[in-house]
Amino acid sequence: MKNKFLFTAILTALLSVQIFSQQTAPTPLLYSEKTLENMEKIQRAGLASNYAYDKTAYMTNNIGARLSGSPQAERAVEYVADEMRKLGLDVQLQKLSVPHWVRGEEKGELVEFEGMAKNSTQRIVLTTLGGSVATDENGLTAEIIVVSGFDELNKLGREKIEGKIVLFNVKFDQTLAELNQAGAAYGQVGQYRGGGAVAAAKLGAVAVLVRSAGGSQNRLAHTGMMRYADGVKQIPAAAVPYEDAELIAHLAKNGKVKMKMLLTPKKLPDIVSYNVIADLKGSEKPDEIVVVSGHLDSWDLGTGALDDAVGVAMAMQVPYLLKELKIKPKRTIRVVAFMNEENGFVGATQYAKEANIEKHFAAIEADLGASHPIGFIFAGKREALPFFAPISKILNSQGAGQIDVKPSASSDISTLTEKGVPSFGPWFDTRTYFNYHHTAADTFDKVVPKELAENASLMAVLAYGLANLEQPLPR
Amino acid sequence: MKNKFLFTAILTALLSVQIFSQQTAPTPLLYSEKTLENMEKIQRAGLASNYAYDKTAYMTNNIGARLSGSPQAERAVEYVADEMRKLGLDVQLQKLSVPHWVRGEEKGELVEFEGMAKNSTQRIVLTTLGGSVATDENGLTAEIIVVSGFDELNKLGREKIEGKIVLFNVKFDQTLAELNQAGAAYGQVGQYRGGGAVAAAKLGAVAVLVRSAGGSQNRLAHTGMMRYADGVKQIPAAAVPYEDAELIAHLAKNGKVKMKMLLTPKKLPDIVSYNVIADLKGSEKPDEIVVVSGHLDSWDLGTGALDDAVGVAMAMQVPYLLKELKIKPKRTIRVVAFMNEENGFVGATQYAKEANIEKHFAAIEADLGASHPIGFIFAGKREALPFFAPISKILNSQGAGQIDVKPSASSDISTLTEKGVPSFGPWFDTRTYFNYHHTAADTFDKVVPKELAENASLMAVLAYGLANLEQPLPR
Repeated sequence: MKNKFLFTAILTALLSVQIFSQQTAPTPLLYSEKTLENMEKIQRAGLASNYAYDKTAYMTNNIGARLSGSPQAERAVEYVADEMRKLGLDVQLQKLSVPHWVRGEEKGELVEFEGMAKNSTQRIVLTTLGGSVATDENGLTAEIIVVSGFDELNKLGREKIEGKIVLFNVKFDQTLAELNQAGAAYGQVGQYRGGGAVAAAKLGAVAVLVRSAGGSQNRLAHTGMMRYADGVKQIPAAAVPYEDAELIAHLAKNGKVKMKMLLTPKKLPDIVSYNVIADLKGSEKPDEIVVVSGHLDSWDLGTGALDDAVGVAMAMQVPYLLKELKIKPKRTIRVVAFMNEENGFVGATQYAKEANIEKHFAAIEADLGASHPIGFIFAGKREALPFFAPISKILNSQGAGQIDVKPSASSDISTLTEKGVPSFGPWFDTRTYFNYHHTAADTFDKVVPKELAENASLMAVLAYGLANLEQPLPR
Repeated sequence: MKNKFLFTAILTALLSVQIFSQQTAPTPLLYSEKTLENMEKIQRAGLASNYAYDKTAYMTNNIGARLSGSPQAERAVEYVADEMRKLGLDVQLQKLSVPHWVRGEEKGELVEFEGMAKNSTQRIVLTTLGGSVATDENGLTAEIIVVSGFDELNKLGREKIEGKIVLFNVKFDQTLAELNQAGAAYGQVGQYRGGGAVAAAKLGAVAVLVRSAGGSQNRLAHTGMMRYADGVKQIPAAAVPYEDAELIAHLAKNGKVKMKMLLTPKKLPDIVSYNVIADLKGSEKPDEIVVVSGHLDSWDLGTGALDDAVGVAMAMQVPYLLKELKIKPKRTIRVVAFMNEENGFVGATQYAKEANIEKHFAAIEADLGASHPIGFIFAGKREALPFFAPISKILNSQGAGQIDVKPSASSDISTLTEKGVPSFGPWFDTRTYFNYHHTAADTFDKVVPKELAENASLMAVLAYGLANLEQPLPR
């Protein structure tokens, strides 16, 4: 046995020399032995912990939907702040003024179409898009014109569109989603949700419907933010599920389709809310910050489990694990629970505005659910990539070692990325994310405990590694 | 080549002799050569036809949900009668008096639970069960008691149940469904939907909730019929989706959960409706009848595509194919579109009561969706099985040759089965049927054209074969 060890030791030494000699300069120390050892401890503890899962349960089941301005959003601020105080973190609430939009009633029915039974209507499931104005109190009735996109809309022109409801019947590309490019698939259809009302109103439409921006085929309407533009009439906007878009398109092929819709959302005065900021002070460079984050607000149809209670819970688990393991990071690890990601982006904007960017060493956010992670996204200078190899190697043991370089790592921290802060996000299997995202079915039961733990572990390893990196990152 | 043919002919003759000698009596002729040839023609034409698909589209998209008593149900009666007249069939409308129950509003919200934000509630998706009485007009508020079944309910007893809302939180066994025993899985949970209100009311409950009797995990509530019993207080009854059952059960583990529910269904006076009966007269035994059927009514949440526009459409396609191919059946093939399968069973009951049972040679119904068929169900005397072997052999070429013997072949025709009529139904891959059944997502888009054609083809081959069978069936 002794000889065998000796042989291995010599071989290892030779290989090291060889590797060293291939490099042009001595490798600077990236992570101390202790840091590497701790990362493995954190990984193991993270995989075994149910802390993030329990926090997700509380935010979704006990608090519920957390749309900005709602009592539940405020309760969630208190809850996260309290939980972080329990861990001994230094908590600040960053005051914000956020939009306060409430949904109200939403009803749709087809009142004229080929074959319709006398004295009947056909129910249409729909959901008001975030920020939409209301119809008048008795509802709005008009013919629906189905278009395949902006091009067809503009070709039809004012003559065909004026006085009509426009349905943007653009399919979510499920195949693209299954190739783990769900974000790209979402972007293709999301442009109609965002910009459909303005494009249709410019041609005199009285309302706009969009086919749901997601993969569900379960009569689920997908809400989300829409926009108005100065000088263009604000018209009511709603999303219809896959099924209802198919139905309307089918009927419209054979004749006139008229719909009655009633939406009663209200835009109330802006309201005070908060980003929750909780610091676990660094032992050596306490003024340098590694952000771990998610967003605390959600849409109001489901309980915002995948979007984004899980992200906040993963971030909360980072200091929890370090405290449990009595490991102190060299830089400060800061949990940020952003407010108002969904319908205003006030939290992220204000955070970046008030932050000392130079002192933000890195930022991590999770906002794409909590499916099995395959690695992490990096948004920053490519020269920084070699600095992450030792982290990637550790994550690789849990099948999550892949590094994907993208222009943006995650929604809220994009405000930091733009200012040069190296940014990261877990990189998931996102095939099913848009089946639930922004729908009534984004609920706690969709979270798989094991997969959430995998993500929370990844975030903690990455955050601690960055907090203890012995070198500055290129930026 | 000649020699080879000779050899084959001799071998075939020898084998035939051998088979013959093993039998105790000469095999009676079951199907003429012409009948066998025609069955293959019908099969081929059925697989290529889109008639059933187009009829399904019309019944679901153009007419819509067809709950008994609704204008749409009446429109569907006219539609099927007209279409059958177009094919030259002899159409009768069998007058019925059917229940007329309308859904009204349905709202649920949790108003007390651990962790609840002040001035908030948490929305509960629910749907009123068919036949349920209303809550009072301001709704009903009470604590929810979660039980795992009748045993736990009865153990808790009046002391714990009086004044409460009982939630039967019994999971649909998706694994059983995936083993193609979806009907058994449905039966396990369906008993709570049917009998939950009576059991709970006996102990003083003020309302009952059941976990949805289906496999959906997409916030879909599953309606269906419930029952009251003489002498037991009629309490409001609703189903909650998988998600809401999980939420309530989660919260109830840690404290009191109170819910407010508002249901405003109405039971209107019974109303006249019809079974549609359309005969394609037999050329040799016109007084002997082979029924092909489905049910025309549906629940009101979706548009009743899988349950059961497809069944009616398959039945309609049988005479269509025969007319197209100019094939005349020896016995009469009768299309029956039953009314009121879902909430009263009046159509099936009255049909069996008024029918000349002796002259009903066989009955076929499809009421389990339209997924890929693997064969057919037979409910009748086992001695009849050998009579179907030649049909099975033909269907086998489309992967649908399996014969499953069951006590009942399908819902409406069970009234005929009980009286001794040999009964049949297509036998499907039913793994996904209960993901949509009785929910808002039972819509036209769920029908796969190819698979519907496979079923329609199967029903036509089977119906024609039975209509031309040269022998009486054991019964």
